[in-house]
Amino acid sequence: MKHIAILGLGVVGKGTADLLEKNRALIEARIGEAVNIKYILDLRDFPGTPYETRVVHDFSIIENDPEIELVAETMGGAHPAYDFSMACLKAGKSVVTSNKEVVATFGEELLATARANGVSYAFEASVGGGIPIIRPLVNDFISNEIVEISGILNGTTNYILTQMKDYGKTYADALSEAQAKGYAEKDPTADVDGIDTCRKICILTALATGALPNAKEVGTIGIRGVDSADVKLLDKHAYAVKLLGRMQMQGGKPCLLVAPFVCGKASPLAHVDDVFNGITVCGQTLGQTMFYGRGAGADPTASAVANDILSILKDGKDSFAPAFHAAANDEVLPSAQFSCRRYVRTDADKAAVEAVLGSVTDLGGAYITDKSFTEAEFDAAAAKLGNMSALRVL
Amino acid sequence: MKHIAILGLGVVGKGTADLLEKNRALIEARIGEAVNIKYILDLRDFPGTPYETRVVHDFSIIENDPEIELVAETMGGAHPAYDFSMACLKAGKSVVTSNKEVVATFGEELLATARANGVSYAFEASVGGGIPIIRPLVNDFISNEIVEISGILNGTTNYILTQMKDYGKTYADALSEAQAKGYAEKDPTADVDGIDTCRKICILTALATGALPNAKEVGTIGIRGVDSADVKLLDKHAYAVKLLGRMQMQGGKPCLLVAPFVCGKASPLAHVDDVFNGITVCGQTLGQTMFYGRGAGADPTASAVANDILSILKDGKDSFAPAFHAAANDEVLPSAQFSCRRYVRTDADKAAVEAVLGSVTDLGGAYITDKSFTEAEFDAAAAKLGNMSALRVL
Repeated sequence: MKHIAILGLGVVGKGTADLLEKNRALIEARIGEAVNIKYILDLRDFPGTPYETRVVHDFSIIENDPEIELVAETMGGAHPAYDFSMACLKAGKSVVTSNKEVVATFGEELLATARANGVSYAFEASVGGGIPIIRPLVNDFISNEIVEISGILNGTTNYILTQMKDYGKTYADALSEAQAKGYAEKDPTADVDGIDTCRKICILTALATGALPNAKEVGTIGIRGVDSADVKLLDKHAYAVKLLGRMQMQGGKPCLLVAPFVCGKASPLAHVDDVFNGITVCGQTLGQTMFYGRGAGADPTASAVANDILSILKDGKDSFAPAFHAAANDEVLPSAQFSCRRYVRTDADKAAVEAVLGSVTDLGGAYITDKSFTEAEFDAAAAKLGNMSALRVL
Repeated sequence: MKHIAILGLGVVGKGTADLLEKNRALIEARIGEAVNIKYILDLRDFPGTPYETRVVHDFSIIENDPEIELVAETMGGAHPAYDFSMACLKAGKSVVTSNKEVVATFGEELLATARANGVSYAFEASVGGGIPIIRPLVNDFISNEIVEISGILNGTTNYILTQMKDYGKTYADALSEAQAKGYAEKDPTADVDGIDTCRKICILTALATGALPNAKEVGTIGIRGVDSADVKLLDKHAYAVKLLGRMQMQGGKPCLLVAPFVCGKASPLAHVDDVFNGITVCGQTLGQTMFYGRGAGADPTASAVANDILSILKDGKDSFAPAFHAAANDEVLPSAQFSCRRYVRTDADKAAVEAVLGSVTDLGGAYITDKSFTEAEFDAAAAKLGNMSALRVL
């Protein structure tokens, strides 16, 4: 019998507990032993639930119980999630988490502490919900240099953009509906301003390159400014607007940008709709792959947490042992150097646009450039065109 | 320094050798040691190539060299690929392969022999080319019961069907073009009759359930009979026809079928075009995921072979250790029980169709049923409708 504890019985924590209970037989068959949730740390008591007798309010009970091999941190927020995770690792307990804020901020220290104590720190659920992406990125691209990652990493914003595309809604109306349905929070800042997406592309970059970018230094443009007129015009030409977290390698260094991008139908990301997530990973020899699935919600996220738990408990020693360090200043290129094609909607005619941006594809009142521009190059060119609506192109 | 051998310097074998040479520095950094291709077994000599000095024509040189830790079998065909693989495993050498025929036919024995000799038998490249699917299916669905797998697993047929859809070509014309471009072989039987797809869905089923179905007993319908009139009509309504290998769990047992399926645009498989592959895996709690990428070609397939090589060499002991057995008669349901909705194009009017098939969606001269039918149920119903063109629906 393997004993574990869960920190926080919220949506993900309860989903994880429910999954481990429901699949008890399957799990015992697969890892060769039963898994017992001995403690659940929460401020609440949960009377009348199957978890009632396991609730504790004092973290030190978990920290000091040598029977506890592994702790699932599903609390969210930076503190005390980080502090409890560190304490568990130091006490020789593996930790798995769904907490992208903690991984993106303290990942280096947590991984190093896990290594130093001979245990694991795993975080499959921190990116892409239930989609297996963290472990495949570490384990299954070992023969290839990863040259680009582009991801629809936030279900809330993808739901809003899909509503704008499929039903002609404005951003404001789509957001209200997402809030009414519980897909968006009352304060939607972390989602719609791209903060959540930014943390996730930083984590993926760390796994691909070994250097964790500082999320606060990554250019991050959310979807508040996406104009439904552009979404509608682009949809007519089979393009979709998607909030992407992107990393492109330039001369051996990663360059990151989070922004709404125009995706053509040849890209698999254009077809990832509603609350689904999709992540393309391009290997230098492998070419493009995509990982797709439910990026949020109790069940998918709990599946990822449970998978980490079982992978660690199964062999005693997990094969997943990534290492990364907080990137030094010169290890990551500034987002201003991110380079991509552009979409512009303007009253200027095609000749005027081409005089400034080079050859373009004409969408009728809007244009997509053939060549790529860095942020600075485009800003300089755009100034010559005056009033317009502009987007980046995948 | 780790020493390996490659059996067969064809497209995949040469791609693997080239990738290991090109990424020498990256590989040494990632696995902590250089990898040396000591021998290449081939009937030819390759004078003037960098591999000239390593070519051997006698397999026993490899088998008997204790320095060789691992052998990459990229020969294709059942024999002598199977025999050489067995000999290597018995000599204590791990084997990696791209050979789905060998895995689908002799997988149980090869995996058991690997286990008995403390080495690995890995076959990421046997399904989905460069797409990481084999290892994720084994390692990253451990907390979930897999309830369904549906895959576009053959690039040649997907190219042909995409040409029929996007350019209105007939099957015969699209096949000729695929042959001219080198995507299809002169004798296209294994591809267009679904034999290749069948082997692959059998391998995926074995990994998901532990029981390897006998490919020869799986209902396998290829694409020769796909009518461009149906492809065209369906395309107008945003449906695509795809050759799928499918496995659905029914009452705890897998039921397999290989056939062309109509895919609606809400399915990510509908957007997998040209030579790309896509595989959806549905976990009971996780919901649907998809893995997408290049399913064939030297570079992607070589990436998968190289990834297996490096995963094994990296830790000495690979974490990938699946086990499956050749399925007994009662472990796999007959394909006749496979159940899905149906598409029919018929001169009968909607009322006549609904009288036989229940409520339908009207596509104008064609219909998609709301309810599912097993093969037998549908055949019985269809007999009442007389002449028609019919397809299964995903």
